[in-house]
Amino acid sequence: MRPIGSLFNPSSVAVIGASQRPGSWGNQLARGALRGRHRREVVLVNPRGGQLDGHQFTTALGGEVELAVVAVPPDGFESAVDAALSAHARAIVGVTTGLAAEAVTRVADACRAAGAVLLGPNCMGVADADAELSLLWGELPGGDVTLLSQSGNLSLELGAIARRAGLGFRRFASLGDCADLGPADLLEHVGRAPVVALYLEQLGDARALLRAAAALVDEGRHVVLLAAGRSTVGAAAAASHTGALASDHAILRSAARDAGVQLVRTPTELIEATRLRRAGSIARPAPRSPQLFKSWSHEPRPVLGVVADGGGHGVIAADLAADLGLGVAPPVDLAGAGERDLRSYARAVAALAAEIDIVLLSGYFGGYCVDEPALAEQEASVADELAAIGNVVVHSMAGSTATTQRLVAAGVPVWSAVEHAVAAVAHLAATRRPVPPAGTGDEAVPGGEPYWWGRFLLPKVGFPPALEVINRQAALAAAELLGYPVACKRLGAAHKSDDGGVVLGIGDPLELFATVPAAPTGVSYAIETMVGAPGVEMIVGTRRDPSFGPVVLVGLGGIRAELLADAAVALAPVDHTAALAMIDSLRGAPLLRGHRGSPPLAVDALADAIVAVSELLIRCPGLDSLELNPVLVTEQAAIALDCAAEAAPAAPATESGRATATESGRATATGTGRATGTGRAAATGTGRAGVGLDPWEAPR
Amino acid sequence: MRPIGSLFNPSSVAVIGASQRPGSWGNQLARGALRGRHRREVVLVNPRGGQLDGHQFTTALGGEVELAVVAVPPDGFESAVDAALSAHARAIVGVTTGLAAEAVTRVADACRAAGAVLLGPNCMGVADADAELSLLWGELPGGDVTLLSQSGNLSLELGAIARRAGLGFRRFASLGDCADLGPADLLEHVGRAPVVALYLEQLGDARALLRAAAALVDEGRHVVLLAAGRSTVGAAAAASHTGALASDHAILRSAARDAGVQLVRTPTELIEATRLRRAGSIARPAPRSPQLFKSWSHEPRPVLGVVADGGGHGVIAADLAADLGLGVAPPVDLAGAGERDLRSYARAVAALAAEIDIVLLSGYFGGYCVDEPALAEQEASVADELAAIGNVVVHSMAGSTATTQRLVAAGVPVWSAVEHAVAAVAHLAATRRPVPPAGTGDEAVPGGEPYWWGRFLLPKVGFPPALEVINRQAALAAAELLGYPVACKRLGAAHKSDDGGVVLGIGDPLELFATVPAAPTGVSYAIETMVGAPGVEMIVGTRRDPSFGPVVLVGLGGIRAELLADAAVALAPVDHTAALAMIDSLRGAPLLRGHRGSPPLAVDALADAIVAVSELLIRCPGLDSLELNPVLVTEQAAIALDCAAEAAPAAPATESGRATATESGRATATGTGRATGTGRAAATGTGRAGVGLDPWEAPR
Repeated sequence: MRPIGSLFNPSSVAVIGASQRPGSWGNQLARGALRGRHRREVVLVNPRGGQLDGHQFTTALGGEVELAVVAVPPDGFESAVDAALSAHARAIVGVTTGLAAEAVTRVADACRAAGAVLLGPNCMGVADADAELSLLWGELPGGDVTLLSQSGNLSLELGAIARRAGLGFRRFASLGDCADLGPADLLEHVGRAPVVALYLEQLGDARALLRAAAALVDEGRHVVLLAAGRSTVGAAAAASHTGALASDHAILRSAARDAGVQLVRTPTELIEATRLRRAGSIARPAPRSPQLFKSWSHEPRPVLGVVADGGGHGVIAADLAADLGLGVAPPVDLAGAGERDLRSYARAVAALAAEIDIVLLSGYFGGYCVDEPALAEQEASVADELAAIGNVVVHSMAGSTATTQRLVAAGVPVWSAVEHAVAAVAHLAATRRPVPPAGTGDEAVPGGEPYWWGRFLLPKVGFPPALEVINRQAALAAAELLGYPVACKRLGAAHKSDDGGVVLGIGDPLELFATVPAAPTGVSYAIETMVGAPGVEMIVGTRRDPSFGPVVLVGLGGIRAELLADAAVALAPVDHTAALAMIDSLRGAPLLRGHRGSPPLAVDALADAIVAVSELLIRCPGLDSLELNPVLVTEQAAIALDCAAEAAPAAPATESGRATATESGRATATGTGRATGTGRAAATGTGRAGVGLDPWEAPR
Repeated sequence: MRPIGSLFNPSSVAVIGASQRPGSWGNQLARGALRGRHRREVVLVNPRGGQLDGHQFTTALGGEVELAVVAVPPDGFESAVDAALSAHARAIVGVTTGLAAEAVTRVADACRAAGAVLLGPNCMGVADADAELSLLWGELPGGDVTLLSQSGNLSLELGAIARRAGLGFRRFASLGDCADLGPADLLEHVGRAPVVALYLEQLGDARALLRAAAALVDEGRHVVLLAAGRSTVGAAAAASHTGALASDHAILRSAARDAGVQLVRTPTELIEATRLRRAGSIARPAPRSPQLFKSWSHEPRPVLGVVADGGGHGVIAADLAADLGLGVAPPVDLAGAGERDLRSYARAVAALAAEIDIVLLSGYFGGYCVDEPALAEQEASVADELAAIGNVVVHSMAGSTATTQRLVAAGVPVWSAVEHAVAAVAHLAATRRPVPPAGTGDEAVPGGEPYWWGRFLLPKVGFPPALEVINRQAALAAAELLGYPVACKRLGAAHKSDDGGVVLGIGDPLELFATVPAAPTGVSYAIETMVGAPGVEMIVGTRRDPSFGPVVLVGLGGIRAELLADAAVALAPVDHTAALAMIDSLRGAPLLRGHRGSPPLAVDALADAIVAVSELLIRCPGLDSLELNPVLVTEQAAIALDCAAEAAPAAPATESGRATATESGRATATGTGRATGTGRAAATGTGRAGVGLDPWEAPR
């Protein structure tokens, strides 16, 4: 157990770089430290001496200290940390910025070697209200939420927005460069907070992060995440269909939903979502709503009901809910009934709440106490009735009034902007599944041409019969054996349909003659049976994401996969049920499930293929990606018609396949010879075709 | 010219239903009217007499009055309006609510007959600051924007949000039920406002509305529209592919963009967008940005630059811009330079502004004057520099400070929520084209089976050769003439591929034998040449929208059209250039333009087909919709492989086609006999196939 707790409730604190100068970091931190001096020993270190508020600076750290905050200029940072470690510090908060990367690495290593933890560097500090610890720039509003933030300025903005929203923080950590501690570590030390608000610019080990977040969610707490950088996709990742469709953010979106973590886009949304999550009376509606979002088989079941006084508010709220894919019942318009009798508000909300998960009251309510003070008392009692109903949220155009404050105090979140109310509710409706462990296997990457790897590694997935050849005579023999029409794929780097490397529907020897050269050229070809059955082309792929580890993807496939942009992605591995859920979440799911009179296709076989592909990278640590595209899904089977794969950089070069490091730091195995030693007979260059590889076999 | 001006600057006003009771409508209106009594004659009418503020009520309206506001109970409404018209009122404002629909119609007719105009009923009043006219419930903040709103409560909320945003209104009209005057009428009377903010629940004559809005935009003014009800799609409209893809909101989105009208989703967005539009220094960036949004050929050119002080703000702004399809340059991070020297802010913004259309400064700037008062003067001078640069918008986490107020005063919009800044900028980048006149023709709907109407009406669009038959012998003869393989379509209501009504690739007489019955059954069949050329299936359709009139649609087609949900829609008619722009706006445009080695297809021929289809409903007032799906686009041509059409309810039943009124009030022509009298030879039931209709012809 690493001593992360020492960050938040240390018995002693040292500020290295304390300063008398107002407006300086060293001054802010020292003042903060002194506010807790009745709780703990405080040591203020400045080689030039000085004092603050009657507290003398020491010129060098001596004795022991549990937590050291280091705010010295960059060139003094390493020696300051060394001094802290010599004083047996268990935790270091590195505020210093502008350090060289190597220095940061050295310091992090030194901390770990000493059994200490390092927060930052380049961070804005830590705070814990329970421990009366405040070591940061500026001040954050007090409350009961935990805030973990990578950016200092963003923390200040979040503090300002939270203050306006009547929200505050009990525990705070600024993560900075995450040289040692990352967000996953800190998620295990969030204190008593009912809600954790996270702002991150790098996810680090995203799977560990989500697992830690899911553990909090399982305890009944809430995690809301603003992840900056959604629009940037790693260039390396985008080189394949799977990469382009399974961008970092697409994975995050899917994995966060599965983990029960609410993603937001802006600081305001982070605070507003946190506000909803904090409200005691709002329960996660899952038990009543097994299927809230659109899926192939049905429109979303209404989960949100809207009560409004007057046309517009209800319709606008319903529009916003529909935008977010949230099932919403037709809005109830009180049409003046509320004005005539305030109790109508509670009656209408109660009636709707009996049938639906969450009710939004939108419009004028909350403002009567201001506009007609004689009604204030009655409005307050209606507010109490609303709070008693439970699972009620309010949008009041009146802003903050006595009534809305009463609602908030009773645990009913109130917004003055309807979009925040609806956005916050939409996230409540997300479903969950466990975050799978990344797992690890020890299977070797097969040698030879990567094209064949899928067949070798996925024995339960159907592939058309195929033979590998290296010259014309072998190709003709192979086609004779398989029977025309055949497909011919030129393997290696040029194995792409848009380079003419894939020729389909070769009907006779003459056509094949024109496709494969007479003499071996160092390139091999796959001759395959053409699969003529009608069906739908899908893509099933997996790749190793630097942050999330193995992920699996299914989508509408073929060369149009990226244009159709209809894909579902999940952390690997997935089981059959999760694979089916991925399929059914596609816009194009009706194509597979039976659409406009067409028969249902072999969705279970496709799900089996997804499961098998999702396990691949875990079984084979040396494999970096594998993509089956297209996978033809027919009424009977799911047949992989093409395959591409990449070995990880560390994969050893085999006799017949070369691992070439590319610019992106990944390796692309470009087989340039015949596949040998892969456990299957290959066609040779002498004109004899070997026995068929993978005879036709419908999966399962 | 209808006397709409009398609503805003009348020489005399009567309040019919004036009241002494505080908190009543009649009281609010009477008080408002009296505030302008130094400008005009004010008559307060109440049959029971009384007085307000020293002004005696009259018991009945006598003499002349230019504007009458009617706020009496529903049963007195008609007689009150009659009295006003007898007093030669030019304009009536109907505040009364709860009227029967027939009474509303009668009153509107009476007003029109008298040469007067009626606003409402069920409206909240009118106001004009220049004329010191204030006849409404409550008060709106003063300013220079015109607000037209259909909902009273929404107007009050907009007023509250505008007040907080430092924005206000010069002219206001509440539209209510629009029994006479609609939004298009009022858009011609917006006064001197630089920006018009519109809240609408029904669009009425949407084309007239957009034409009036476009006229304002052409004058250099701005129109921002919040249209409630986006999520509701008319059931009738959704019955066809074209209907499902060209929903009311899809049309509005496209047509509003073309008209230069900015659409928003929430009251806050309406005010925030209005605030940006008001700022004098923000120019529409069109001249420098011929292509701002993603299209088939390129990523969007960066139109937005972001300068931020610290990591997060820039990245979050860039993410939000990317979400909205706005081209954004990589954010510039001042990384502390601003803190060291405030002038860095202006320098970085100026450098970026020299290369890019609009620069967003996001983060801490604006807050120095609060946190370090010594810097206030310098921050103010940097604010002046920023304002001088032009096309600068600011997100300041500090909220409202002396510096941000100085920026606003200098015409630089400042937001405290970055999402509002980015959303407002995104809309600036939209392109424009003229709102086409609806036009009108007098061509008749052809008789016979609607399947043939496309061929008849679209001579320049390519269709495969086809013959109509009614029994097996004729079918065999037709197939012989055309040559196998053929397609066979059972016409009439069952003409749908998912009912087995379309059989493709019939290769020999035996197959055809099984498809068409021996004896005529009252159903006719189309026997067609199979088109085997490779290409992409598109849909081209047109329908008459109740609000927008004829609209045209192009999208990825086939039976999967709705699943792919990749369509562009526009007000009809469109020209060739606009048709190409529609095609290129599709996600799937690369399929047509040449994608991954596939050749470019006949996009110009597809555009010609779009143009021709877009003109159809204007030529034929009796036609309600026509859909070509799929249109096979090959390298050489665009060939319509199937066609469906509907006559308008008013279309006369023809000898061989019956117009059946459906529940939705539309008519579906279900031809049950042979096509005759349509100017083409049809196959008869005697076994002789007529001459080919539309021999193969590549368009142009």
